[in-house]
Amino acid sequence: MQTLVNECAEPASSDVLSEYMEGCREIALAELRASIPSDRPHADELYRLMLDYPLREGKALRPALAIATCRALGGSLEAIAKSAAVLELYHNAFLIHDDIEDGSEKRRDRPTLHRQHGTAIAINVGDAMLALALEPLLENMRLVGMGPALRILQQIARMARESAEGQALELSWIRQGRWDLRDRDYLRMVHKKTSFYTFITPMRVGAMVAGATRAELDSIGRLATLMGAAFQIQDDVLNLVGDEKLYGKEILGDLWEGKHTLILVHALAHASERERQAALAILKKPRPASLSEGGTALEQMLGELCAEGQLTVAGAVRLRKALAGHADATPKVPADIEFLHDLVRRMGSIEYARGVAYRHAERAQRVLRSAAAWKRPSVHYDFIHQLIQFILERDR
Amino acid sequence: MQTLVNECAEPASSDVLSEYMEGCREIALAELRASIPSDRPHADELYRLMLDYPLREGKALRPALAIATCRALGGSLEAIAKSAAVLELYHNAFLIHDDIEDGSEKRRDRPTLHRQHGTAIAINVGDAMLALALEPLLENMRLVGMGPALRILQQIARMARESAEGQALELSWIRQGRWDLRDRDYLRMVHKKTSFYTFITPMRVGAMVAGATRAELDSIGRLATLMGAAFQIQDDVLNLVGDEKLYGKEILGDLWEGKHTLILVHALAHASERERQAALAILKKPRPASLSEGGTALEQMLGELCAEGQLTVAGAVRLRKALAGHADATPKVPADIEFLHDLVRRMGSIEYARGVAYRHAERAQRVLRSAAAWKRPSVHYDFIHQLIQFILERDR
Repeated sequence: MQTLVNECAEPASSDVLSEYMEGCREIALAELRASIPSDRPHADELYRLMLDYPLREGKALRPALAIATCRALGGSLEAIAKSAAVLELYHNAFLIHDDIEDGSEKRRDRPTLHRQHGTAIAINVGDAMLALALEPLLENMRLVGMGPALRILQQIARMARESAEGQALELSWIRQGRWDLRDRDYLRMVHKKTSFYTFITPMRVGAMVAGATRAELDSIGRLATLMGAAFQIQDDVLNLVGDEKLYGKEILGDLWEGKHTLILVHALAHASERERQAALAILKKPRPASLSEGGTALEQMLGELCAEGQLTVAGAVRLRKALAGHADATPKVPADIEFLHDLVRRMGSIEYARGVAYRHAERAQRVLRSAAAWKRPSVHYDFIHQLIQFILERDR
Repeated sequence: MQTLVNECAEPASSDVLSEYMEGCREIALAELRASIPSDRPHADELYRLMLDYPLREGKALRPALAIATCRALGGSLEAIAKSAAVLELYHNAFLIHDDIEDGSEKRRDRPTLHRQHGTAIAINVGDAMLALALEPLLENMRLVGMGPALRILQQIARMARESAEGQALELSWIRQGRWDLRDRDYLRMVHKKTSFYTFITPMRVGAMVAGATRAELDSIGRLATLMGAAFQIQDDVLNLVGDEKLYGKEILGDLWEGKHTLILVHALAHASERERQAALAILKKPRPASLSEGGTALEQMLGELCAEGQLTVAGAVRLRKALAGHADATPKVPADIEFLHDLVRRMGSIEYARGVAYRHAERAQRVLRSAAAWKRPSVHYDFIHQLIQFILERDR
């Protein structure tokens, strides 16, 4: 919490960033705990599960960005705390629903909520979190005044809609097997699906609470858009080159998933027609674990039944197809991932993506420096500045 | 639309009710169409799918209750129209998510949204509808004034939370196989899961827009609670005794699903210990179609593979168990449903439930008559009055 009360600028490092975010996480969690009812004997599990994801190790990037922006513009911690917590609640509700939509098995090193409690309960917990998020935003009326509270509500409504649009865009690409995309298609998807609720809304809400002018809000929106694109592209790069332990996610997981990254979009656009067709055929295959609700366990059972002579190989193939719900359901194999990995390396797609991320981050630094409204020096301004540097330098 | 402009009370019938609701449905759909963007080339499917459920044949009961209450209290159609449409939007978002949570195959005679477009897209469409519902509620500020608009937002936030609590309550009973319930447990679940968003919120929002006092809101809340309980219990009764064509849903579907109805709760509480154990064993079994994502098609394939000698019977049993995710996964068979149906008849549970519904509806009529604020005569008051009669008399 030191960094949140200390107004003096100091040279920041990755540790300073972590410390700042840890302080913000504690503030957001305290607010969340206060706004989640504990007097509902008939729905205690519902409210307990709302805290499941927030209590797993997470960076609390969104509350940190809201708090840093608000305070770097002269706003108070008291005024932004509730909104910061609401952003964390929305984020975690999206994560729960996204994990179901993507068929993910793990979240922050533990089974996803729907794997632990079933899809029905997980959808409902997410819905309940979205509902609960409204109440602190209405209490904001008293805290920050009618005008800012209404603008925050509008911003959050827009955020929820943009996120759903971004998700719809990506799901439609997946469904149609579309890979004839340009950089701007990718950047539009990231803008809606990631930047809007990770950077744009937290920073704009922080600025609204601090009483920023419309021009300042516009400039902060531009800054956040640039940061969001740089952040997501670097995240995709790290998935291919990072150290699994430091990165915290499965390395090459994006290739197994067939995720629409700038890297793959670039590689497919620059590959020979033969290689492109080979890559497209691989990308159409499901990842082994997402074969069905049963996932890997089911795949294992099919193997066992075949080994025991209870099921023929032809029978297993038909079952796999029926369970995956489409005709070409043979899952990706390690050689497929090797092929894709090799392709993106040979096409120089990782360096290309890194370059795009750098240029976005550099432009973000320029916008940050040119915006006049910041109260400097402050650790809050430094946090934003260092975060952009970190995006460029991060190796995890 | 005749009934919405004609202020003169006339003897009402089921046709008059239908005509009134049809008029309200048109108003709600026109508002929905206006608030769903058509200029989003990258998310056109998302917005098209939002209208899928609302455009299927539906009663638009919630908009009708909001409009009738508002106008019967002297409020204008213009002032309530947006909120009425929002209630329809919420209702349909809940339906989409509920259909996934319950593993339902059909909604209004057509495949459910997740069966048509996959679970991922269906979850996201529901989320987008919840997000989109916020914007008209913020526009309400201009339409009905700051105070009522805020109270409406609070009521809707409470509604979304109560619905999720009700859903959580029922899901936890299902998960734990709990049937040792009292009438008041059932009534609490119905209050949260059904009444709050079908009766209480539409009627209270209608009253808020009309400028009702706090005492009037309380009285309308009581009325709506009574109507909600009567309506749901009669719905459960009709599922057992109704005419499938008129009722529009699968008769005995509640028994196949093992739904927690007042009827089954009563039958289990009054059966002999031996019969109770037999019924509990049946209720633990899944319904055949909800065995897995593949449903009946998968069951058929397992049968085929066994018949062709590609799969042993023991292998099929193990696969079924793995797919259903629990140990006792033999689905219910027609004889099981016969047993339950016979049990509720012998225990007099259908008559008992009908009696509880009648008493709730009669109390609702008394509360309706005693509330002084209604502007009588009006077709709007008559709609509410006739709807309560209809709950008592309906055979479909």
